[in-house]
Amino acid sequence: MRSSELRGPEISRAEKRSARQGQAYKIQTFPIVASFLNDIAERKSSNGTVAGMLFLKHALGPARRCLYRTQRLLVRTPLFYPQVCADKGCVRWQSGEGGRDWNPRWQHMVAGLAAGTGMVLAFGLYHRQEEQAASEEQLADSAGRGGEAVFPETAAPVGAYPIFTREEVTKHRTLQDGVWVTFGDSVYDITDFVGLHPGGSKIMLAAGGALEPFWAMYAVHNQQHVLELLGEYKVGELSSEDKKKGSGAISDPYASDPPRHPALKINSLKPFNAEPPSEILSENFLTPNAFFFKRNHLPVPEVDPERYRLEISGEGLPKAVSLTLEDLKTKFPKHTVTATLQCAGNRRSEMNKIKQVKGLDWGIAAISNAQWGGVRLREVLEHAGYRHGGAAQHVQFEGLDKDVSGTPYGASIPLRKALSDDGDVLLAYEMNGEELPRDHGFPLRAVVPGTVGARNVKWLGKIIVSAEESKSHWQQNDYKGFSPSVDWDTVDFKSAPAIQELPIQSAITEPRDGALLERSGEQVTVRGYAWSGGGREVVRVDVSLDGGKTWQVATLRSGEDAPPLGQAWAWKLWELSAPFPPEGEQLDIVCKAVDNSYNMQPDSVAPIWNLRGVLSNAWHRVRVSVKKD
Amino acid sequence: MRSSELRGPEISRAEKRSARQGQAYKIQTFPIVASFLNDIAERKSSNGTVAGMLFLKHALGPARRCLYRTQRLLVRTPLFYPQVCADKGCVRWQSGEGGRDWNPRWQHMVAGLAAGTGMVLAFGLYHRQEEQAASEEQLADSAGRGGEAVFPETAAPVGAYPIFTREEVTKHRTLQDGVWVTFGDSVYDITDFVGLHPGGSKIMLAAGGALEPFWAMYAVHNQQHVLELLGEYKVGELSSEDKKKGSGAISDPYASDPPRHPALKINSLKPFNAEPPSEILSENFLTPNAFFFKRNHLPVPEVDPERYRLEISGEGLPKAVSLTLEDLKTKFPKHTVTATLQCAGNRRSEMNKIKQVKGLDWGIAAISNAQWGGVRLREVLEHAGYRHGGAAQHVQFEGLDKDVSGTPYGASIPLRKALSDDGDVLLAYEMNGEELPRDHGFPLRAVVPGTVGARNVKWLGKIIVSAEESKSHWQQNDYKGFSPSVDWDTVDFKSAPAIQELPIQSAITEPRDGALLERSGEQVTVRGYAWSGGGREVVRVDVSLDGGKTWQVATLRSGEDAPPLGQAWAWKLWELSAPFPPEGEQLDIVCKAVDNSYNMQPDSVAPIWNLRGVLSNAWHRVRVSVKKD
Repeated sequence: MRSSELRGPEISRAEKRSARQGQAYKIQTFPIVASFLNDIAERKSSNGTVAGMLFLKHALGPARRCLYRTQRLLVRTPLFYPQVCADKGCVRWQSGEGGRDWNPRWQHMVAGLAAGTGMVLAFGLYHRQEEQAASEEQLADSAGRGGEAVFPETAAPVGAYPIFTREEVTKHRTLQDGVWVTFGDSVYDITDFVGLHPGGSKIMLAAGGALEPFWAMYAVHNQQHVLELLGEYKVGELSSEDKKKGSGAISDPYASDPPRHPALKINSLKPFNAEPPSEILSENFLTPNAFFFKRNHLPVPEVDPERYRLEISGEGLPKAVSLTLEDLKTKFPKHTVTATLQCAGNRRSEMNKIKQVKGLDWGIAAISNAQWGGVRLREVLEHAGYRHGGAAQHVQFEGLDKDVSGTPYGASIPLRKALSDDGDVLLAYEMNGEELPRDHGFPLRAVVPGTVGARNVKWLGKIIVSAEESKSHWQQNDYKGFSPSVDWDTVDFKSAPAIQELPIQSAITEPRDGALLERSGEQVTVRGYAWSGGGREVVRVDVSLDGGKTWQVATLRSGEDAPPLGQAWAWKLWELSAPFPPEGEQLDIVCKAVDNSYNMQPDSVAPIWNLRGVLSNAWHRVRVSVKKD
Repeated sequence: MRSSELRGPEISRAEKRSARQGQAYKIQTFPIVASFLNDIAERKSSNGTVAGMLFLKHALGPARRCLYRTQRLLVRTPLFYPQVCADKGCVRWQSGEGGRDWNPRWQHMVAGLAAGTGMVLAFGLYHRQEEQAASEEQLADSAGRGGEAVFPETAAPVGAYPIFTREEVTKHRTLQDGVWVTFGDSVYDITDFVGLHPGGSKIMLAAGGALEPFWAMYAVHNQQHVLELLGEYKVGELSSEDKKKGSGAISDPYASDPPRHPALKINSLKPFNAEPPSEILSENFLTPNAFFFKRNHLPVPEVDPERYRLEISGEGLPKAVSLTLEDLKTKFPKHTVTATLQCAGNRRSEMNKIKQVKGLDWGIAAISNAQWGGVRLREVLEHAGYRHGGAAQHVQFEGLDKDVSGTPYGASIPLRKALSDDGDVLLAYEMNGEELPRDHGFPLRAVVPGTVGARNVKWLGKIIVSAEESKSHWQQNDYKGFSPSVDWDTVDFKSAPAIQELPIQSAITEPRDGALLERSGEQVTVRGYAWSGGGREVVRVDVSLDGGKTWQVATLRSGEDAPPLGQAWAWKLWELSAPFPPEGEQLDIVCKAVDNSYNMQPDSVAPIWNLRGVLSNAWHRVRVSVKKD
């Protein structure tokens, strides 16, 4: 595919402006339209994909609602989904059964799409392609009637692009003034795209400036189709002087990410998100650091431990306090806590099988267990002079990992948890007896036992005691649970509480789904993990070998003494050896756990499905075959 | 039925003793056997019930295991169950479908059986009858071959009974010396029955004395069949002098129980256990005292508030402390807490539909909500001088309600809960602004918010701080959850934690299951309650009108301001109005709730079934029909 062709016909700034103002007019030159239709036809026959974008852009009219329509479509139409063409780097729509046979490349792409803030340009692209099919039909129809179609907006190229300076571009930073950006030497007016951006208003951060730093941060943009889509919005070129200056050398912000173990299954490379092979989990009560699941929202910051400072401020504190790493290690007693961390999206892939959700396609291993060493948050707050009695209700954490706008990763936990004698909230500088690895927050991270991973902020830079929860995207508009009936049209993030404590969970790590078991040894051994949030101890795991009809009680293994009531922060590994059933050559293995509040896992996934694919804790099932003798 | 017939053949003490010593011998007189067989046949043909008990008793041999066999049988054989004959006061075995069409009298009896200590003589009776069926077949078979059967023990009556004094009876209080009891003027050697007693070793409390006080306490014994069963064990009569003395006037210990509202659905009269009509629950955020569910384990004690003392002692206390009601009301600030209490057995009837469990057959209304007024346990312990640092882990409560042996109702809660700033454990003397009613613990009860009803000890007499949990039956061998695979043969009560915090729960109070709805108004309104233990707030209730395929979010109603995190002790009432579905005339309404730890209810009952029928919190379902237009 010739990328230059795909920029589409070019129009003048003035025409564009009037189009944005809603002035519909007839196309001016028939040959131009004919050429445009031919262009579309040619592209369609070659690969049936990215074409006619400019037309669509103009035809869409009130385009702000499209983001939601796109999302709705992806959610509601499992039989019709986009597929990445392996050889052509393009996308086309394809029908299939319930999304179960999704092309793996597409899966990876979806995973990538949802990394970071979770949503990207590309969603808009797919949407456009979908509408394109209908529009192309309309166009072909019009052409058949002699090309007399009336277009709401024009599509005429008008020769060379106008020239702008970077300074002129910076003046276009609002929907009123137009939203302009640069990429390389080109200037783009993306005003009409803002409402289509699947990443939401975050796109406005780039208004008036260069896209490169953002795309370096959210690497999923670096794809041919995204460039093609951008091409349609081109309205000018930079002045020769500004061209020479360049947009500043944009290095890959992920270039300094640490090396990782190749055994990890990568769900997103930039930012890095990966889980270990599930068998590794049940082999170790403490997950080795290299295999501990990694869930980064942004590039791993490079922190000089000598220059590192932890800033503490907020309600109830007489003044802001700044602590060095040395202060933390020497002025406070060191405590160790063994705590399991779990991503809210662990086992999301099972929800995806029901109906597509947004988010990384985690298997069952976005959970791991470690012994953390560090100082107690409570003691640090007391040292900083915190006194009860004010309006404080929350402790906000800010990471040193920041996006290009300088916004750090952020989250908060209830003050009650932070101050509790039994809450065991740590500021950790050690993990399993080693220095905290860079991927896990070097030099300091929050460890909030019993609480969803997202609140265990890594590369901890600031602690703010506040009457309010963190205002971060991740606290306010992510990591919340909803009814299966709620979709992206109807979701009201204010209506649900931010996930803190997680519910009871368990999964089967061995055998793997689809495994072919040898009948040697007369026994089948099933292993797994079980954990519950809020310090609730797992007291029982039931395992079924017949799909849930009958149950056996598994043997629980813990790597430590029985924890005090309400402080069971670590998972339990479990095991069940059972004779192969006499008849049948297939085993439907199911597990479900019970905690000491006698909470139990729900039976099935569909009734707990939610649009973000979090809190996936239904009974875990694997089906394995038994080799014939 | 002629009760005298049912005493069965009588044998001498000596024969009895030798039988107990395991000496098997041939029957001595054929005519006696023939008469015995006729006797059985006659009774069988008349009502197929209580007969051949003596034979069975002797045939059972190593009878100690029978209790468990009986229980197993009742659990495993839903198609074969005993039925109370309405007109004859007898029991016969009857087949049916899954126990769904149980005779209501039998239901009441089962309910009664499980009241108090939960198990009674009658279970043994049923067991015997069941084994009788098999034995009768053997007998008939033997008779057919000329009555040459060899019986392990004899069944010959030997004239008049020996005479014993009460003093002699008191010497038989162990299995070695034999276990004797009196009832009326008769003396019974129940040594062989001890192991059969479904109430367990509690029967030994009566050893050497009169049964009357026990049967007065556990009224379920006062049935014809139990008298008949006892008759078989008669070994003598009391001396004339002792006859004159009597066993002491035994008044009904329940005679002074308070009056109750007739609208209550009684599950057991003595002790009193009853639930309100479920519609009443969802009409009132605070359940009126008269309708608050009643769950008594023993007779309601009569307490003189002037003479009442609360005794406090144990670990960490410098000395025992005694407080009057006046002390409690004047020396401590009064606090109010709105808290929902729920019986561990709420919704047990749904488990009974899967497979018979032991316990009162509660519907969905063994849960209610009230505002409690009283003093904080924490403050009372501090007043008593409690200091941290010792071995104390639990706070034990003892009630003033006692069984005939003087053993009080008892339970304990974790010390952590008792001392927690946020635990809100009250010693309550008010309920919904009124003086605590007698049925709810007058003059003082524990209110342990978020914790199973059984730990909210009523008629509170003693508080003991201890390193140990309460040793009471209800803490150690009851109110615990098990896997569906655990039966009375395999249950190990030590393997499961005592229920404290309860899991997420919800139920539909309106419409009722089986209701016929009018299509007027175009809307169907569904109402219910939702609650979770441990102070976890209910954040959502999903309601389905199509059996769980699709869901709608109900509107939650709370009677108070949003509680602090972790202190949501009160339920939420909820409501959903939805249009009647266009097609179909039946609605499968389902509800499920979510708390702020995002715990959800399990989908179905069978996988959470447990032998005591506690923790029944699967999705609640009602099926209603819509009237044809």
